[in-house]
Formats: sequence, structure tokens, C-alpha cells
Amino acid sequence: MNSMGQLLRLNTFGESHGVAIGGVLDGFPSKFTLDLEALQSFVARRKTAQHSFESSRQEPDEIELLSGLYKGQTLGSPIAFMVRNRDALSGAYKEIEAKYRPGHADYTYHQKYGIHAFAGGGRSSARETLARTIAGGMALQWLQKEGIHISSKVVSIGGEEGEPQIAKKIMEASKRGDSLGGVVSCSISGVPVGLGEPLYDKLHATLGKAMLSINACKGFEIGQGFRLAEQYGSQVNDALHLVEGRPKHRSNHLGGIIGGISNGEEIYMRLSFRPPASIGIRQQTITHKGEEAELKISGRHDSTFIYRVLPIVEAMAALVVMDHMLIYRAYRDR
Amino acid sequence: MNSMGQLLRLNTFGESHGVAIGGVLDGFPSKFTLDLEALQSFVARRKTAQHSFESSRQEPDEIELLSGLYKGQTLGSPIAFMVRNRDALSGAYKEIEAKYRPGHADYTYHQKYGIHAFAGGGRSSARETLARTIAGGMALQWLQKEGIHISSKVVSIGGEEGEPQIAKKIMEASKRGDSLGGVVSCSISGVPVGLGEPLYDKLHATLGKAMLSINACKGFEIGQGFRLAEQYGSQVNDALHLVEGRPKHRSNHLGGIIGGISNGEEIYMRLSFRPPASIGIRQQTITHKGEEAELKISGRHDSTFIYRVLPIVEAMAALVVMDHMLIYRAYRDR
Amino acid sequence: MNSMGQLLRLNTFGESHGVAIGGVLDGFPSKFTLDLEALQSFVARRKTAQHSFESSRQEPDEIELLSGLYKGQTLGSPIAFMVRNRDALSGAYKEIEAKYRPGHADYTYHQKYGIHAFAGGGRSSARETLARTIAGGMALQWLQKEGIHISSKVVSIGGEEGEPQIAKKIMEASKRGDSLGGVVSCSISGVPVGLGEPLYDKLHATLGKAMLSINACKGFEIGQGFRLAEQYGSQVNDALHLVEGRPKHRSNHLGGIIGGISNGEEIYMRLSFRPPASIGIRQQTITHKGEEAELKISGRHDSTFIYRVLPIVEAMAALVVMDHMLIYRAYRDR
Amino acid sequence: MNSMGQLLRLNTFGESHGVAIGGVLDGFPSKFTLDLEALQSFVARRKTAQHSFESSRQEPDEIELLSGLYKGQTLGSPIAFMVRNRDALSGAYKEIEAKYRPGHADYTYHQKYGIHAFAGGGRSSARETLARTIAGGMALQWLQKEGIHISSKVVSIGGEEGEPQIAKKIMEASKRGDSLGGVVSCSISGVPVGLGEPLYDKLHATLGKAMLSINACKGFEIGQGFRLAEQYGSQVNDALHLVEGRPKHRSNHLGGIIGGISNGEEIYMRLSFRPPASIGIRQQTITHKGEEAELKISGRHDSTFIYRVLPIVEAMAALVVMDHMLIYRAYRDR
Repeated sequence: MNSMGQLLRLNTFGESHGVAIGGVLDGFPSKFTLDLEALQSFVARRKTAQHSFESSRQEPDEIELLSGLYKGQTLGSPIAFMVRNRDALSGAYKEIEAKYRPGHADYTYHQKYGIHAFAGGGRSSARETLARTIAGGMALQWLQKEGIHISSKVVSIGGEEGEPQIAKKIMEASKRGDSLGGVVSCSISGVPVGLGEPLYDKLHATLGKAMLSINACKGFEIGQGFRLAEQYGSQVNDALHLVEGRPKHRSNHLGGIIGGISNGEEIYMRLSFRPPASIGIRQQTITHKGEEAELKISGRHDSTFIYRVLPIVEAMAALVVMDHMLIYRAYRDR
Repeated sequence: MNSMGQLLRLNTFGESHGVAIGGVLDGFPSKFTLDLEALQSFVARRKTAQHSFESSRQEPDEIELLSGLYKGQTLGSPIAFMVRNRDALSGAYKEIEAKYRPGHADYTYHQKYGIHAFAGGGRSSARETLARTIAGGMALQWLQKEGIHISSKVVSIGGEEGEPQIAKKIMEASKRGDSLGGVVSCSISGVPVGLGEPLYDKLHATLGKAMLSINACKGFEIGQGFRLAEQYGSQVNDALHLVEGRPKHRSNHLGGIIGGISNGEEIYMRLSFRPPASIGIRQQTITHKGEEAELKISGRHDSTFIYRVLPIVEAMAALVVMDHMLIYRAYRDR
Repeated sequence: MNSMGQLLRLNTFGESHGVAIGGVLDGFPSKFTLDLEALQSFVARRKTAQHSFESSRQEPDEIELLSGLYKGQTLGSPIAFMVRNRDALSGAYKEIEAKYRPGHADYTYHQKYGIHAFAGGGRSSARETLARTIAGGMALQWLQKEGIHISSKVVSIGGEEGEPQIAKKIMEASKRGDSLGGVVSCSISGVPVGLGEPLYDKLHATLGKAMLSINACKGFEIGQGFRLAEQYGSQVNDALHLVEGRPKHRSNHLGGIIGGISNGEEIYMRLSFRPPASIGIRQQTITHKGEEAELKISGRHDSTFIYRVLPIVEAMAALVVMDHMLIYRAYRDR
Repeated sequence: MNSMGQLLRLNTFGESHGVAIGGVLDGFPSKFTLDLEALQSFVARRKTAQHSFESSRQEPDEIELLSGLYKGQTLGSPIAFMVRNRDALSGAYKEIEAKYRPGHADYTYHQKYGIHAFAGGGRSSARETLARTIAGGMALQWLQKEGIHISSKVVSIGGEEGEPQIAKKIMEASKRGDSLGGVVSCSISGVPVGLGEPLYDKLHATLGKAMLSINACKGFEIGQGFRLAEQYGSQVNDALHLVEGRPKHRSNHLGGIIGGISNGEEIYMRLSFRPPASIGIRQQTITHKGEEAELKISGRHDSTFIYRVLPIVEAMAALVVMDHMLIYRAYRDR
């Protein structure tokens, strides 16, 4: 279940403080020249601090490509990649091993598996998103050649929408050792009409699943999403007209997807992310032995990860759209 | 792609005005006694008008079971079922065949497939949800025996939250031939700790995909969803404590799922539905031949379907949770 | 698990003496005109007795199409079909219900599911192959338009290879109430170079699985199969040369597939089928209650089904090849 | 398509002379202690020369575990592993790059992908079986704890069945630079009644697919396989009787599987392998530029690989049986 996709399939692996984080991307077309420098830069966006408040895990995240390429070109075989974890197991994790961190997956993982690589969250760590970002970065390059572009931006953090207000709010939360979530938007342009499969693999349903599978993502809406529930049908039906003789929609309330299938307009969506679970404030919890306890997490933690989440969101969108594109190609003369 | 699920798999079929709507539910455990009367009643909820404003497609929706049962008990083989479409093809669909209905999937289906059974929307019709409801109704019965209960309710319609306001708003929209969407909540109780698979099959990600695959669903949030993005980490971390010696969470902001895995608390989510696309108001569109045109849809259409959507939502939740339960059982002694 | 295929997916249902046998074929391209008469004729081959020795289940096997077609053309939506079972439950099955029939799946099904629709074998009955044949018949029509042709023939029955010897052997077995298996060959011509996916979905591996999933099939070989194990590499390497300037192979020992991928030559394979398990000879067995007993199966049963198996073999080959063709199309400009 | 399995899923990667060969094994239960030394020994069997005739690729094949383990125990997360390729690209591959080797996948891969990592066969190299053997070795350890044992042996090489004849035949072929295939048998004991899924995932059908996906495997039979086609039903029906009050079969012609489901008896099968395609004898072929040419492959190549194939066969059987065991557990109280 550590995999996604139908024709383009990603399978990832790795624990936060194990040997490596990595993945295998299968189904990528052959003879495509990957720009590895661009890929490395794209992945680096995941680490670039926007403000001075963000933590500084100083691993360079160098991508090692293990297979699937020959002289820079894809072979059509699985592309395996990994990034070694260089941070040693620090003493900071000692206490965590004995107490469940509130808001973290410690308790659920422990109950489910009977064992958990607690250091840094193990498999449930946000470090896993590195593998998605690498694979998605490859998909982005392929989509670009097909004229499809994906971008994302921060809508709000902690409910604040303007940059000065956001910076102030983060500063304030950071001082108290507290954390903030936010809302991110993502848009996809250049998608042909006809992507997406009814009924259960609707384009926005697979996008939604991919986004909700990102750590801390708790909400998803396509187009106007929850605002559509407050309007009249006459207000939100995106009607067709002709622009230079070609069908276009007069509006785009529905976000470029109707009946689960792309309609040629820009696809856009919004995602909600909860605040980071790791905070520097004393919290109540229980130990593995089943005693109530207090926990104050020391060591690094971010006040917010919203800026870092952008390349992950774009990567997930790219994996989904490229997969749909390949399926679309199988049927395109129909 | 007309299928969902991993061990419990639903495959549906049927066009709105074709011979029948139906499905095949594979992977259902054997020796389970299905209560067919209860199933028929559950499915009937999909048609029960809450107010007098809703349309009256008068088909009885009698479920025909084609396989998988022997003397009322499941055999472990695929359960196939169908409901015949009794409404004849009416003349009301003549005009639709020539013009794309705004907000409907006519255009995207036509572009994708080069052909479309336009009458009543064909495969993209909401009538397809009948198959989901039947299959989900079976899953609900199985879950009940496991102590898992699913319920849903209307949160708001057209932005109104109280019953008198809602009724007034629907009445007003109905008079103008306009339509209204709404917000629905769904909750699941009795789920054991440990359901859901990291990373891409997180419990709320598969729930989200299932819900977003329902016609007209445009938004999904688990737990406090979009509200989590506005709060501090210290406010939303659901901490553990002991209740009668057993681990419980002090709060439930995250909706019963942490790290993609159920934590034993109630799972709850909210869904946004756009207003029905079919309205009795004149709209701009284009014809299949590529000419601009006006369209006024005659024939039946509802002002809102939010009340009818409830059993569909419960059915989809049941299919997802039962599938995860079966996977959970495969590993449960680990 | 009652399904097969990746892009072209078949999901079947039905017990031998239940309401109906049927299936849902998903992923079939749109705008294809199905020849329903030809389909009915193809399916009828499954019932045509070659000799007078074969049993006479007199159901007409009329195909009911439930969805996926509009005015004779495929819609791109799932094609659901079924054939009603018209034979009533006869008294002949009474004894079977209490005793496990040797060579039949009665015991394994009963142990696995704790329940079994014993009449006529239920889900394990050869009648299930009807659904495969219908779906495969549709795939055959599509492949024909692509220039791909599939045929099969009887190689031997009961070890005899010539027609008079075969007829004599069947007659002899029939008189004693005994049964005979046989060997069938199948060949596929017109396949482009490049079908099949390394590593685990090699073309002959998916063909092998499909064939071995047919009731009573116990052996599969591609190309010269088991004879290849007795030869030298220098004898069996199918070398390339040029014929009218185009690459062709000088020989075809490997059966048109190298490295799991079609090489443009004729694909051929052989299948082994065990004799029908139902015989008119007294056999030892045990009852459901766990007592030793004797059983003599009355009622209809064939001395051999090898002639009838041919359309089923062709149908399975067609489903596999068409699925690979669709995947091939997704990548074909690579 | 570089993956296999339903709940236990293997995804492999790597080209023969690329960076590494490896895989990701997902769905392995948590809290299982892997014996890494035993695993390394099992994998080493793949390289142990039985006679002096076999080639000597001297890579130690050291397994690097990248994830999924914590202090020797499985975490329930994906187990990623790899073995680095240490052999440098030798000049011996120069000529191969220009000419298609008869019997090899050079031509089909080149036509399919438009590019091919020719050195040592790239993805189509038998070196890929290393990844299967490692993953299967883990499955074997798990099955052993469940009381399930898998073994295999050489039946014949080049048609010879006794050891002195075999040695003589290999010696003779080796002198001429020629190669030999053979037949291998595999048996599985301790399997409970009820493994396998009708209809398309019959136990022997999934075993057959797995075996036919091994390089050079061209034939598969379960139980008496092709010999069943020559016998009477009365000879091959494996009847039940009671042994110490428990149901057992009087014979085992069908190989421990009836109706696609294990019946509690030993499962056995036979596989045919073609001779290695690489021979030291001059052969006709064509170049990539489309000219006829002669090719004499220098460098290392084995006269036969049949002894080395045994751990691969056992590994594939283990992966299939363990996957079915997990599915079986999901339903076992039914």
C-alpha cells in the first residue's frame, strides 16, 4: 500500500532515521531526457526556508539514481532513486521512544504494527515526502514537454492572508514554541479535454486522494469547493461558448473538471494543512507502558511547513496527471 | 476504472436510460446472512423526498440479485445485482441530444468518448449512485455485525443551516427553477485502532477519494479540516490520557485518524456538494455542431438532492471501511 | 479476485444453478460497433457437440446486454452482460449435496467458504466459462479490426492424435462412463513487435495465467515449451535476417515472444486439460459429515469437453492480447 | 508492470550493468525477525556452480537493506534492498551493441523502447532474478514459521535424467560453446486447505504466471500436467478418504490444487527452461542499422543455468504462496 498510480506507478520506501528514503517509479516512458540538475533544484525547494523561523535539518538530499537511465535517457524500465539519511540518531529521541507524541502517528503506528521506528517518526515522518517530490519532479518535466504546467502557492497561514500578517503570526507562534498550519492552492494548465476516468477514478477524486495522502493534509476542494455549496445552480454552471470558433467555458467555478473529466480549462484546487504536531510546549500524553505523563519535545521543529509543502503538492499533482495522460493515450483515437 | 476497493471490490455498470444499473461486489466474506428487506429500505432512502420540491422519478428500484447468495447467505463469490430502468426514453431528451447542458458532463464525455448516451446523462447520471448504494448497503450490514456504525446528516443547504431557513430557501429556488447544493457530514463509530494504510492509502485519503467520486461532490475535509489551517498546533493536537485504564484521546480535532490510521475515536468528515446542474432557467451553450445556442431544460429536475445524498455517502464510507477492515484482518496478529 | 486485466478488465459473476452467469467488461474503447450476431455464434461454439457423445444441456445461452452500448456502438463505459440459467435444480444434485465428488472443487470450496452452492458446481462450474467466452468474443472482434487473429485446435484427446483414433477412444470411454482430457493448441497472428511487459507481466506469463485459470487446464507451454528443455541453444535461438528489407526471424521455436515481448512472429502455445471429473463410474469419497462413502454420479456429463474448450481458449487469449495492446498504445510513440 | 502480488507486493528495479539491482517488498507483516545470514546464504545458492562448466561472475552479491527493519525486526513498512553491480562495462559488449543477439531480448526491447541498455542485457538480464531471490528468501523464512516448506530439484538437463549422463552432456555442449536447458520440479508442503482465489487468481494460475515470468521458462505444469491429458478421469480423480478420522486424498495426480484452491496435499509442479541464449558458436543476425551480419559472442556464458535456477524457483513460489496466505487470513474466520 506504499504505492500509487495505474500505469505510472510510484512505490516508496524508507524510515526517517533509517539508511535511506527512496522510491521506484515504474511506467515512465522511454527515451525521455531527464534534467537531473533541474530535478535537484526542484527537490531543494522542499528545504528552502522562507523565513528564519524554520528548522535546519542540514542534509543536502543528494539524489542517487539506481536504475532506469542510460546516458541521461530513460530506458522505460523502473527508475529507482534514493537519498541517504545522514543525520545520526540523536539523544533527543530517547524520550520520544517512551511516550506517544500528541498529534503524531506514534500511537496509531504502534498499535497497528506492534513496533515503530520512533526516531524522527520513522515511516510516518514528513521526510518521506522527499521520495514523492523526486518522483513527481520527473513527472513534471515530462508534463512540461506535453505543454502541461503545474504551480502552487500559499493562500494563508494560521488564518492570515497577507505576507506581513503571516510573518508576524509565525514569529509570535515560534516564540511560544507553537506551530501553524495553512491553506495552499494548486493549479494545472494545458490539460487536454478528456482526462479522468468515471466513476471512481474521477480526475479530482484521484487528485484529492493524492493530496490527502500528504502528511498533515486534512481538506481538499476542487474549483470553488465548499463555496459551491452556498450558491445557486444558475451561478455555478460553467456554460460553453465559442472563442475563435472553439468551445471554451464562460466561467470556471467547477475547477476545470466536469463529471470527473477535464474540460480544457485550468484545473485548480485548495488544500488545508494542520499545524505541525511537534511543538515546544509541554503536553499531556501517556507512555508505552500505559501511564499518564508529560512531554516537552526538545530538538528541532518548525513553526510551519507550509512553504515547504508547495513542491510536494506540485509533485503529487504531476504524478496523478501524468498517470491519467498515459491512460488517455491508450484510448486517444477513440 | 469503474471499480473501487482492494479486497472488497465494487465494479458498477449501467446508463441512466439503458437496460439496467447494477454492479458486482467481489470479496465479500462467505456465510453472512444479508437482510434483503433492510437493504431495500436503505436504498429507498435515496428516493425519499424530504420536501415536496423534489422530483418524482417513480421507478420502484427493485433490486434483482443475480449471484453470490444461496438461501440468503453469501457464498464468498461475487454478488451481482441490478435494477432495471423502467422509464422510457422521453421526448424531453431530444433537445439535449443536440446541445451540451451547462454544468453537466455532456461535453467532457462527448469529447472523451466521441459518443455519449445523452438520455438522462447516460453513465454520468446520478442514477449510477444507485449501484453504490446497494453495494454499500451490504457493507453496512456487515460492519454493523462488527460493531461499526455509520451515519450522516445535512449540515446546510444553500448556506442556510436551520430547517425553516432551508425549507424557505429551497422553496424560493424551486420557484425560479434554480437549484441548491449543500454540506453533508458523516461519522463512523466503533472503528478499531489501526485501520488505514500508509502512505498513499491513508484511511482519510481513501475516504476522500470515495466521497469525491460521488456526483457533485467538490470538497472533502476530515476532522476539523479547513479550520485546522487556522489554529495553533497546541490547540489541535489530540492528546492521549487514560480512561478506566485504557488509552483515549482528550479531544478529537483530527477526526479519529492520525498518520492515516484510525486512532479509535469517532471518524468524522464533511463534504461539499454543488447545486444540481439541471435547472429550469434559460442558459447559454453550444450545440454538438459547434454553434452557440440557448437551452431551457424541460422535464423533471430537483432543486436539491442533498437529502438523497445521505445514503450514498454512508454507502461509500461503508465500502471503504469494510475494505480496510479486511486488509486489517490479514495482518491483525502482527 | 474474480477479475482479470489491467486496462481491459473483466469481472465475472454467477453460479451454475443460480439466477444468471455474467460479467462486466470495463475499459473497452468507445465507438466500436459490436457484431452481436457474430458474438452469439462464437459463443454457441462452446456448446456445439462434435460427436454424439457429448451431453446436451439445452439452454440456448441468449446473451442479454445490460449496459455499455448505444445503438450498437460501445460507449466506453462498462459492458455488462448476462445469460440466465434456465435449468431447474434437479433431484440429481441431492446426493452430491451430501458427498464430495472426487476431482471436483466441492471439498476445497466447502473448506474455504464454509458453504457451497453445490448444484452443478456453483461458482466452480464450467458454466462460468460462458462469461469469459462472451467477453473474449468482444475482444476478438476488436482485435480483428487491428489485424490480429486468434485460432485454436485440438491436438490430441486421451493421447490419441488422429480423428478416427480419437473418435474410437471417446466412444470406448463413453461406454464405460469414463472421461478423457486432451491437448489444445492456440496461435495468434498479426501481433506487432513490442507487446508484453517485463518482468512479471511478460506476454506469455499473462497468457499462461489466463489459460491455467480455465477449468481443468493443468499445463501450459509457449512455443516449443517442454521440448526446448531437451535441445541445444544453437538449435532454438530464433535468429534474425532480412526479408524484403525487413527484420524477420529464420525460425520460431520460442513461439513469437522473446524476453516476454512479442517479436512479430506467430505466437503459439499448447495447453493440457485433465479429463472431466464427473464420471459415471462408482467412486470412493467422504460425506460432509466426515464418513467414508461411495458415489455414482447420475445425470448428464460429457466424456470430453476438449472441442468445447476451443472458443474459451481463444476468448482468454483475446482478452490478454487486447489488454496488452491498450497498454502498448499508451506508450507507442516512445 | 515491474511488480507482482496483491497484499505482498514486490517491485524490482535495475539493469545488469547499471548502478544496482534491487527491489521493494511491501506488505510484509511487522515484528518478524529476519535471519539475514540465512538470507545471504540462500541467495548465494544462485551463484554456486554445480560443475566446473559454469561461468564465474565474481560479484559477491552483498545485500544492502535500505528500509523496513529496526534492530533486525520488520516494521511493517516496505523492505527495500539492493545489490550493487561491481563488474565494469567490458569491451566484450561493444559488438553486442551493434548486433541483435539471437534468442536474446535485444531486438524486442529495442523495438519496444527505442533504446536499450545492451550491456549484459540491461533490464532483461538474468541478473534481475537476484532481486526476486532476495525478496523470495524473506518470504520463505516467513512461510517456514507457518509450517510451509518449499523445495525444488533438477529433473533433467538436455533431456538427460541421471547425474553422470547430465555431466557428460554438459561437458560435451560446453566444449562446442553450446548450451543446454532443462526441467525443474518444485514442491510445496504444509499448505492449509483453502489457499487460492477463483477464478482468475487460481493458486496454480498465479504460480504458473510467476514461474513463466522467470527468464527462459517456457513451460509450466501443475500436478501431472500434460500427462493428465492422456489419462481417464477414473485414473486421475484424487478421491477423499479418512486417515485417523481426518480427510485426506488417496492419490495426488492433480498436484494439491482442485478448482484453483489448495486441498491440503503437497503442491508440485514442473517447469521447462530453454537453453541459455548466449552461446560461443557463430550465429546469423542483423545489426541495428538493418544489415545482415554474423555474431560470435565472446566473454563469459554458461552452458546451463539449471542448477542456479532452483533458488529462483523457490523464491517465486514463496512470494506467491505468502501472498495467498495473507489474503486467506483476511477471510479465515468465514
